[in-house]
Amino acid sequence: MIKVGIIGATGYAGGELVRLLMGHKDARIVWYGSRSYIDKKYAEVYQNMFQIVEDVCKDDNLEKLAEEADVIFTATPQGFCASMMTEEILSKAKVIDLSADYRIKDVNVYESWYGIEHKSPQFLEEAVYGLCEINREKIRGARLIANPGCYPTCSTLSIYPMVKEGLIDPSTIIIDAKSGTSGAGRGAKVDNLFCEVNENIKAYGVAGHRHTPEIEEQLGYAAGEKITLNFTPHLVPMNRGILITAYASLKETVTYEEIKAVYDKYYQKEQFVRVLDKDICPQTKWVEGSNYVDVNFKIDPRTGRIIMMGAMDNLVKGAAGQAVQNMNLLFGLPENTGLNLVPVFP
Amino acid sequence: MIKVGIIGATGYAGGELVRLLMGHKDARIVWYGSRSYIDKKYAEVYQNMFQIVEDVCKDDNLEKLAEEADVIFTATPQGFCASMMTEEILSKAKVIDLSADYRIKDVNVYESWYGIEHKSPQFLEEAVYGLCEINREKIRGARLIANPGCYPTCSTLSIYPMVKEGLIDPSTIIIDAKSGTSGAGRGAKVDNLFCEVNENIKAYGVAGHRHTPEIEEQLGYAAGEKITLNFTPHLVPMNRGILITAYASLKETVTYEEIKAVYDKYYQKEQFVRVLDKDICPQTKWVEGSNYVDVNFKIDPRTGRIIMMGAMDNLVKGAAGQAVQNMNLLFGLPENTGLNLVPVFP
Amino acid sequence: MIKVGIIGATGYAGGELVRLLMGHKDARIVWYGSRSYIDKKYAEVYQNMFQIVEDVCKDDNLEKLAEEADVIFTATPQGFCASMMTEEILSKAKVIDLSADYRIKDVNVYESWYGIEHKSPQFLEEAVYGLCEINREKIRGARLIANPGCYPTCSTLSIYPMVKEGLIDPSTIIIDAKSGTSGAGRGAKVDNLFCEVNENIKAYGVAGHRHTPEIEEQLGYAAGEKITLNFTPHLVPMNRGILITAYASLKETVTYEEIKAVYDKYYQKEQFVRVLDKDICPQTKWVEGSNYVDVNFKIDPRTGRIIMMGAMDNLVKGAAGQAVQNMNLLFGLPENTGLNLVPVFP
Amino acid sequence: MIKVGIIGATGYAGGELVRLLMGHKDARIVWYGSRSYIDKKYAEVYQNMFQIVEDVCKDDNLEKLAEEADVIFTATPQGFCASMMTEEILSKAKVIDLSADYRIKDVNVYESWYGIEHKSPQFLEEAVYGLCEINREKIRGARLIANPGCYPTCSTLSIYPMVKEGLIDPSTIIIDAKSGTSGAGRGAKVDNLFCEVNENIKAYGVAGHRHTPEIEEQLGYAAGEKITLNFTPHLVPMNRGILITAYASLKETVTYEEIKAVYDKYYQKEQFVRVLDKDICPQTKWVEGSNYVDVNFKIDPRTGRIIMMGAMDNLVKGAAGQAVQNMNLLFGLPENTGLNLVPVFP
Repeated sequence: MIKVGIIGATGYAGGELVRLLMGHKDARIVWYGSRSYIDKKYAEVYQNMFQIVEDVCKDDNLEKLAEEADVIFTATPQGFCASMMTEEILSKAKVIDLSADYRIKDVNVYESWYGIEHKSPQFLEEAVYGLCEINREKIRGARLIANPGCYPTCSTLSIYPMVKEGLIDPSTIIIDAKSGTSGAGRGAKVDNLFCEVNENIKAYGVAGHRHTPEIEEQLGYAAGEKITLNFTPHLVPMNRGILITAYASLKETVTYEEIKAVYDKYYQKEQFVRVLDKDICPQTKWVEGSNYVDVNFKIDPRTGRIIMMGAMDNLVKGAAGQAVQNMNLLFGLPENTGLNLVPVFP
Repeated sequence: MIKVGIIGATGYAGGELVRLLMGHKDARIVWYGSRSYIDKKYAEVYQNMFQIVEDVCKDDNLEKLAEEADVIFTATPQGFCASMMTEEILSKAKVIDLSADYRIKDVNVYESWYGIEHKSPQFLEEAVYGLCEINREKIRGARLIANPGCYPTCSTLSIYPMVKEGLIDPSTIIIDAKSGTSGAGRGAKVDNLFCEVNENIKAYGVAGHRHTPEIEEQLGYAAGEKITLNFTPHLVPMNRGILITAYASLKETVTYEEIKAVYDKYYQKEQFVRVLDKDICPQTKWVEGSNYVDVNFKIDPRTGRIIMMGAMDNLVKGAAGQAVQNMNLLFGLPENTGLNLVPVFP
Repeated sequence: MIKVGIIGATGYAGGELVRLLMGHKDARIVWYGSRSYIDKKYAEVYQNMFQIVEDVCKDDNLEKLAEEADVIFTATPQGFCASMMTEEILSKAKVIDLSADYRIKDVNVYESWYGIEHKSPQFLEEAVYGLCEINREKIRGARLIANPGCYPTCSTLSIYPMVKEGLIDPSTIIIDAKSGTSGAGRGAKVDNLFCEVNENIKAYGVAGHRHTPEIEEQLGYAAGEKITLNFTPHLVPMNRGILITAYASLKETVTYEEIKAVYDKYYQKEQFVRVLDKDICPQTKWVEGSNYVDVNFKIDPRTGRIIMMGAMDNLVKGAAGQAVQNMNLLFGLPENTGLNLVPVFP
Repeated sequence: MIKVGIIGATGYAGGELVRLLMGHKDARIVWYGSRSYIDKKYAEVYQNMFQIVEDVCKDDNLEKLAEEADVIFTATPQGFCASMMTEEILSKAKVIDLSADYRIKDVNVYESWYGIEHKSPQFLEEAVYGLCEINREKIRGARLIANPGCYPTCSTLSIYPMVKEGLIDPSTIIIDAKSGTSGAGRGAKVDNLFCEVNENIKAYGVAGHRHTPEIEEQLGYAAGEKITLNFTPHLVPMNRGILITAYASLKETVTYEEIKAVYDKYYQKEQFVRVLDKDICPQTKWVEGSNYVDVNFKIDPRTGRIIMMGAMDNLVKGAAGQAVQNMNLLFGLPENTGLNLVPVFP
């Protein structure tokens, strides 16, 4: 039984971790860290957990937690994990960081986009980017996992085969992303009030969203060259779900069947990436509550572009589900342990 | 392994049955019945099931199905199950009917409220009303289960202890209910279009909803007398969830602790009925996707009334979850098999 | 041209006042008071007003404002208006208070339900409860208007004819109310975040909501006796709209036509109260954005009760629209000036 | 007083026409055409019009209507208006067609994208594309107006200045559009049910949506050359609103101020196109219920692209509002008559 500690257990991603781990037969949560709710019953913060979780919230003492847990999930604001990380902690427990602190290898890029100093760049090289479908082998032996961002997970998986196979011109990639509101977190801000989000849609972080360099880095590895792209997120009036619609110019004329074969090459054996049938566009509702990413594409012969689409639950495959998938890999469990979640519809 | 057949597998309740049974270790679906989609892949109707369910839809031949299945779920319009039922079918397979056909013992009451002739009243006496928390023992030995309606499940469980203990005047019961839109089914009607339901709330079926006599009958058994009450459902712009707010006059002055003890008496050992802590009002989001009913109450000393509240997922405890719970009882399995679903929040 | 000052112009009710007054040919806003946004352009707080309102926000100096305005709307938290009110202010400008400070005549009742001291009880007697359809004549000559609460407006108008005519037993009145989330205001609270409200419904303030004594007082005037009733509000995942479903026992057997005649007696000449046709239940979407209250009723001969229903836009007839209606009366304008708003559907 | 006839008065666009014309001081509706509801009271179809509209629905006899009305709005399915149009009708009444029948000058393009035969191509040359901000002068003298599509209105106005001034490479234009569900009409289809749309987002019509050639044609006029572009619409869980996010490569390095000056050049004098302040992204909620299009842009120096954004109410500026704007131009009225609608927020 893996002993699990969560720092940031009362955010939405933390809450989802708790939900998933309740159904994980080989893991047990021993630490519900939440600075805001210390000593309060966890189930009083998330009443859905009433009579399911009896524990009270604890502080965010990573060092102490490292002695009690086999693995630590940090679902915390940017900078927190980096500021706390020590060799001692890593020598005692595996760490899966759901923040962005170890996702970007180049510390200057991190500091420039996030506007904060990185407090433990010495661990950047060691950290493994936990996109399981792509970095599976590296993840198995790691101590420190940088759990991918929600938008980067959906974007990268949707575009990866095309870049990896050199079928599109990377300089033409444009990603138009749409996210449910849980991605904005549980902080009490006017912008996230029901009445401000409901019956509304807007772009935000245009030409400057922090997930941009993360996507560029990962797709750059696939391309074998530096990639610069456009990424535009939008806020959608729904709780969960990310949809990305990506555009790129095809290098040459291709058929549906050729591209389908490429996607199948990378994903046919992947349980959590579903390449939909021809002409079926991904919908976020079809993956809600599950660890699936549904992807598909459409070739536009008129413009010579391909439109690549992906849909995912931002709190599962985009956060907690992928974190559990990483945990399973770290501990040698079947990768889908606790993750055979059937999407909830409607 | 229990072989399961579903008639009406492409309605919302049928779809939820499929979702739940995918996670049930002792059951396997052998028949996805859907008259509208015969020979179509089930996963093309519900794309959330892509790569999870490979079967195609079949017809609604109950007699043939009875030879292939151990249990048949009928998630069909009123009248269908009654019109098909035969002794032969029941001799071969258990039947759990999610429609109203066998819920009301008095065939005249049924025919009067539903406006159709009952085609097999000879089975009414045998049929067991499948509200597990109350009729558990009767269910175990049954062949034909009348799976309770969504509103009646939530209403009855919220009010039952008060009536059973004789603490309220039954003639004063008023139930004001609110339901998500999945309760209206998947039929293509203007009234259920997104734009008609969204940003809107209305009462419907005022003083005439068909679930009224069902609630009256069940609470009447608890009271040991005939009960006539008001039941008013409302349509709420959300997919899932039922909330009921019920009012009744207390027969005498009581304390919170006394009433709490009464609710605990009936529900403390029940996994799926959670009596919330003092002053915590049930919310549908806290039970979404799960088989829980959250109940609580508030005494109003000013008016001498008690306000009883219950929240539930109409598709789980209000339909498919309760049907599985009944199946577990029928086949001697632990009652919560396949039903340890943690509510999804947010 | 009436010079209008608004204190609390950046709350939702204040914002709606601005919207309505932009379309009022005889009024001009001279003061956008908002303590939180002093010196900020109003249209930067509410971007819908971009290029429509050019003013910047000012403070909440009521005394200074009284010298510049003919009428002052206070859309402020409970206690503010009462703490600022002076004879001098009232001698210079009419005041329409959208808070609860002057709605309840008995200062002890106010202080008990609101939990704060009333700082200017000397104006309670003078203040007129601004429910135009009922207090029209008193309003015309007033200096200080207590603009009714949202729930009380909808509740009172829906039930008033039945109580006034003595057709129901007042001690049996139960009001089950449902409101959109704008009623909770624009404060940044976790409970009002999109993800907490969306796909959810809950009761709140059960047996203790502050609008209870206000409704009791107004219906008490109609009944000619003290009334105690149950009022239960619910939070619904929509921006605007209040629906009330009220129950009461009929004193004697009545027909639909008799009751219809009673409602028509009070409302046939009222532009803003629409008595719907037989069996048509009010829906909040049908009045959205307008000053209408749609009411109707259903007699239940089985229980001897009548179900009374009302739907209204909480920000219009429930706040800003009624405030403008009061202003029109105060200044001798046609009562519907600026209020001929056609409901927006869908 | 202009006598107005509406064919298709019970669709969402038709209903919005009625709403707007109720507030138009110089127009009066004399014909509520609705084949589905002949002889039914209009206010029974749209209860928001109760006690506002007393008329009953009539048939769609254009010839008869042309004798009774000064202007005819056809808010009908593709093909209807073209199949009915005659010289005689046009000689008697102005026609503003809200369908696509006369929007595309090349009948082959129309027939290819719409898959139907055009029954009156002889009027194509005469018809004026009613995008008022661009074709104002041509509209004034016209008999037959092709009222622009919702997506084309928002897309064209957002991109037009950049194309007209030759600042972007037209071959790089990609338009990612998001629409509320009223754009899908009031037909009873499973895909538009509340439970299918709510908590969901999807792309549709990828690389094949019928509004593509319309946008290409209009931007092509501005560019002075044929344009081929990508247009991808998405369905968003909200009633109203269109947001478009468009991407294109800048031909040369430009500053914010330079581009701002270009947008101002075209829109500073336009009441209904608001160029937002720097870094403010358009939101559909800020224009809801009004005739505004809010536009803005962001330069991305990293990729050399510009992101152009536009938000609009699809039923107002995207349909009924623009139709009324066209009517005002046709009859020599101030262009904003009946259109000074303040956006409703929240």
